[in-house]
Amino acid sequence: MIAHVEVRTGGRGMHEITDRVQEAVAASGLAEGLCTVMIRHTSASLMIQENADPSARRDLEAWLDRHVPEGDPHFTHTAEGPDDMPSHIRAALTATTLSIPFEHGRLALGTWQGIYVWEHRRRGTVRRCVVHVGA
Amino acid sequence: MIAHVEVRTGGRGMHEITDRVQEAVAASGLAEGLCTVMIRHTSASLMIQENADPSARRDLEAWLDRHVPEGDPHFTHTAEGPDDMPSHIRAALTATTLSIPFEHGRLALGTWQGIYVWEHRRRGTVRRCVVHVGA
Amino acid sequence: MIAHVEVRTGGRGMHEITDRVQEAVAASGLAEGLCTVMIRHTSASLMIQENADPSARRDLEAWLDRHVPEGDPHFTHTAEGPDDMPSHIRAALTATTLSIPFEHGRLALGTWQGIYVWEHRRRGTVRRCVVHVGA
Repeated sequence: MIAHVEVRTGGRGMHEITDRVQEAVAASGLAEGLCTVMIRHTSASLMIQENADPSARRDLEAWLDRHVPEGDPHFTHTAEGPDDMPSHIRAALTATTLSIPFEHGRLALGTWQGIYVWEHRRRGTVRRCVVHVGA
Repeated sequence: MIAHVEVRTGGRGMHEITDRVQEAVAASGLAEGLCTVMIRHTSASLMIQENADPSARRDLEAWLDRHVPEGDPHFTHTAEGPDDMPSHIRAALTATTLSIPFEHGRLALGTWQGIYVWEHRRRGTVRRCVVHVGA
Repeated sequence: MIAHVEVRTGGRGMHEITDRVQEAVAASGLAEGLCTVMIRHTSASLMIQENADPSARRDLEAWLDRHVPEGDPHFTHTAEGPDDMPSHIRAALTATTLSIPFEHGRLALGTWQGIYVWEHRRRGTVRRCVVHVGA
């Protein structure tokens, strides 16, 4: 089964989609299987990360800000703005696809894990994910 | 089929689980298919890496030590100790899920590839992985 | 269904394999499902990245050159040459496996996404990927 999940990001940062991925698993009617999420963009990415204390996600974002800074004079791919090339690099360093087993109709995530769309562009947009659910 | 693999890590470093993932494939009775491993934590991760010379894994660990150091004064998520926030970042930069095709009942890994649980916390613990095997 | 894709890389850089992965999907005869690619090496990796402007891929390669440089005096795994250890680190920071849903017989990639084998060694070689296509 294929489902589509869209997120209006509205700016840089992480947007949790765990519930929406779980809805796709529920809609499949399967008790056990594999759920795969792919984001259809190269300047946003996916991540499974700490879902409790938001300071962990802020520190993670800030680490990338320091190591993949906007305005790096080495960048030549700058036509779409200073935040474009860092976005591609951040996406390359994180995940474009994630595959999550499920049991008893529930994603087998750990207690502290959430699934996030990570917007890397300053001006967010609508980001599209494709979800596959199989046995 | 779903299987569970637990690893007592006992401290930072990489722990090979290739044989245990292969056991899950064998238990499925399938000759060909896809085997997916997910780690249920956000301060440990998964990796497929060189299984021969351990110096490659040591240099990799040391590179992360230099680029995501403990005690970075930028970190605010410090309540669980100085090694906690670096662990989340290291996990975000590596893998939480891996999907490995298999043929003739064997994982189709290259000769020099092993599957590792990578503990990022100084004080290790029991780390739980979920394995899905499908056709 | 399992397919094998080989790429003669001929030196560091990214080699698009989107069409060859799509051929494996077509050969399966399935309209909808999941396609997984794994690279059987630890000094080359996979990536889904911008397929339009090559300057984005060049800047990405150059960022890794600066952050994971050859000849870093910290490296001890140097028997296979100065480009070997950086290659393992670059592979660990990017992807070894990718899972891509497909619909209507076509990979559900975004308009600007291509699938690449990323050779990290200076002297390229033949790189082998395994492709699994399932319902």
